[in-house]
Amino acid sequence: MVSRARRRFPIALLSDFGYRDHYTGVMKGVIASIAPDAPVVDLTHGIPAQSVAAGAIALAQSWRFFPQGTIFLAVVDPGVGTKRLPIAVESRAGARFVGPDNGLLWAATQAAGVKRIVELRAPRYRLEEVSATFHGRDIFAPAAAWLWRGVRFEALGPKLPTMVRFEPGGEVRESERELKGTVIYIDGFGNLVTNISREHIERFVRRFRGSRLLVRIGRSAPIEIRKAYGDARVRAPLAMFGSFDMLEVAVRDGNAADYFAAAAGVSVTIRAKRE
Amino acid sequence: MVSRARRRFPIALLSDFGYRDHYTGVMKGVIASIAPDAPVVDLTHGIPAQSVAAGAIALAQSWRFFPQGTIFLAVVDPGVGTKRLPIAVESRAGARFVGPDNGLLWAATQAAGVKRIVELRAPRYRLEEVSATFHGRDIFAPAAAWLWRGVRFEALGPKLPTMVRFEPGGEVRESERELKGTVIYIDGFGNLVTNISREHIERFVRRFRGSRLLVRIGRSAPIEIRKAYGDARVRAPLAMFGSFDMLEVAVRDGNAADYFAAAAGVSVTIRAKRE
Amino acid sequence: MVSRARRRFPIALLSDFGYRDHYTGVMKGVIASIAPDAPVVDLTHGIPAQSVAAGAIALAQSWRFFPQGTIFLAVVDPGVGTKRLPIAVESRAGARFVGPDNGLLWAATQAAGVKRIVELRAPRYRLEEVSATFHGRDIFAPAAAWLWRGVRFEALGPKLPTMVRFEPGGEVRESERELKGTVIYIDGFGNLVTNISREHIERFVRRFRGSRLLVRIGRSAPIEIRKAYGDARVRAPLAMFGSFDMLEVAVRDGNAADYFAAAAGVSVTIRAKRE
Repeated sequence: MVSRARRRFPIALLSDFGYRDHYTGVMKGVIASIAPDAPVVDLTHGIPAQSVAAGAIALAQSWRFFPQGTIFLAVVDPGVGTKRLPIAVESRAGARFVGPDNGLLWAATQAAGVKRIVELRAPRYRLEEVSATFHGRDIFAPAAAWLWRGVRFEALGPKLPTMVRFEPGGEVRESERELKGTVIYIDGFGNLVTNISREHIERFVRRFRGSRLLVRIGRSAPIEIRKAYGDARVRAPLAMFGSFDMLEVAVRDGNAADYFAAAAGVSVTIRAKRE
Repeated sequence: MVSRARRRFPIALLSDFGYRDHYTGVMKGVIASIAPDAPVVDLTHGIPAQSVAAGAIALAQSWRFFPQGTIFLAVVDPGVGTKRLPIAVESRAGARFVGPDNGLLWAATQAAGVKRIVELRAPRYRLEEVSATFHGRDIFAPAAAWLWRGVRFEALGPKLPTMVRFEPGGEVRESERELKGTVIYIDGFGNLVTNISREHIERFVRRFRGSRLLVRIGRSAPIEIRKAYGDARVRAPLAMFGSFDMLEVAVRDGNAADYFAAAAGVSVTIRAKRE
Repeated sequence: MVSRARRRFPIALLSDFGYRDHYTGVMKGVIASIAPDAPVVDLTHGIPAQSVAAGAIALAQSWRFFPQGTIFLAVVDPGVGTKRLPIAVESRAGARFVGPDNGLLWAATQAAGVKRIVELRAPRYRLEEVSATFHGRDIFAPAAAWLWRGVRFEALGPKLPTMVRFEPGGEVRESERELKGTVIYIDGFGNLVTNISREHIERFVRRFRGSRLLVRIGRSAPIEIRKAYGDARVRAPLAMFGSFDMLEVAVRDGNAADYFAAAAGVSVTIRAKRE
């Protein structure tokens, strides 16, 4: 058991359960029953229903801002009741992840460094009755709570060699004068988040000194890359690096998703143009 | 007063206040002012506005997953400022309930076993000024917080002999070859939750060995009862026992409320058909 | 440092981040990393996007219901990345406020009594890298968490002489027989909250003893002032003092915003009529 003094980390919840039903509340009841002293934090429950991609992105962007040892309980689970495995992942960075093995945990655990994967099979660390529809309550919440109390990973179930791999948006492709990515997430302000990182662009731009970079959403008119919202005119679109260092397209004091009529999956093209 | 070591249970909040306004936040401020050490859990604030039925169902399905002693503060209160009484209910199962006496608490307290009902009348355990519109802040939150601190039920106000009775969806009726119930709740995924329990069906099915059960939503085509979502084809409807052991109708990877254009109150008919 | 025994107050969060994204969750991660024992309360994250007015009103109405010493972390920040300053305000009433200096904090801090304003400039109490788009995470959350841990205001940055002034709805004007105000907020139930306080009306009414007060929303038919929802007929409009002692217009068991097709900014006129 981990000593009590060291357990100053929360259990952070992410799901697509929304805020209408009592389902997240019930998971918290289960956690409070097993680990009444565990601080519970809502990462978000607003992931679009069954969108493993949106959940994976939110988790990958968030985990590093939490204290070491935080247990992430993530449930976006269209395959509940089928053969997908319930798992827990220990990472080199210290974060722990609990959820379905459907790709949801892949991006975050890759970044944190996978140390160990186990299948959540031990009946002792599940609720007595396991339903076919609500593993968040019956399997994942108990596992997270027991982990918080200090139960070891090995006790939760057998070790797994791998987990389901899932890269939201696919890979960014680079051709002669173009970088080609995807809009992977649209946030609540309507900003279009892409899978093109600051690193991608910095590598690309080295080949084109003296050129200007222009961004296109689908077949839109070209958009300039700016430092901050304030650098664009009001209601004008701009591209910029967002809070998580990914290229985003926004509209100043407006909504880019509406402006471009764009949805997740739309292509993003960056082209170097000689001045 | 209850000894401090024993108070490892939360105050769980349920309301129809939604997530737009600061009203639930203000209730939490009041609780923190009276009982700063009380863990506060949001069960949900997404109950449809003034839907006592939806609130009653959420509460009845949730309470048993929380630690013994949990105080449920439930506010769906279309009659605030009229003559409906503010009450607290102690249950045999250990859970405590605070809210308006308008039927909201009935189903949960019936299941938990009513031990004592009191009217929240003692001025000492209300805010100094009680508004005509926000008893959640002025009466219910203070009562829950004082209960958490160990104040006895008798101190909150006079004992009441009964409370308002309310059975969402009414009773399930059984005729020669049919079981007839009601859709009582539509969850955020669009699943249709009925008032027909697993027990109802098991009793019914004993009379019809060798028959197949077919479910109809209103006048829909018949739907088969399955074990899990995965047993239906993608986008096809199925009936199954949901996470709380009530019969639900779902659409695999889809939304049953849209599929059937169904609302709470629609009839559900189960018929036995000889094979 | 404040002694540990005294720190029984929460950090209360208010924002326009909504409930879809992981942004509020990430702020909580930052707080938990710096001040793992701080209780965190969501006041609301449902402020309409970029509505400084709605945020200011919610904050002004809420702060006094929280324990003394509570730290309010408020982020409605359309000017993030421009020249608006990040600030913290200490009040005479004991509440502390952290957020952008764009008017959001004005009404609440005026009511609580401004004792000291500082600019959040000390790099030690920010995250190492400060983005151009997410000061909630990089500047405000760390400041709130460090304040909770006992860091003094002076350590956060230089003192400021003033802050941006903002009175939602402007001033209430009184003419010969009329009191003229504005709808400043529409809550989730559709109630129209005005900037006319109980005090305004009591002062006004002293001049017109024996008269009846009639309220108009824009050019609507006149509405009577009642004590409680129950004093109006079902589906009929009424004016009343709401939970925060401001004049509100509601529809019993209905939605006043729909009934009057009203939005924030609409005028409210009160006229005395001789009986």
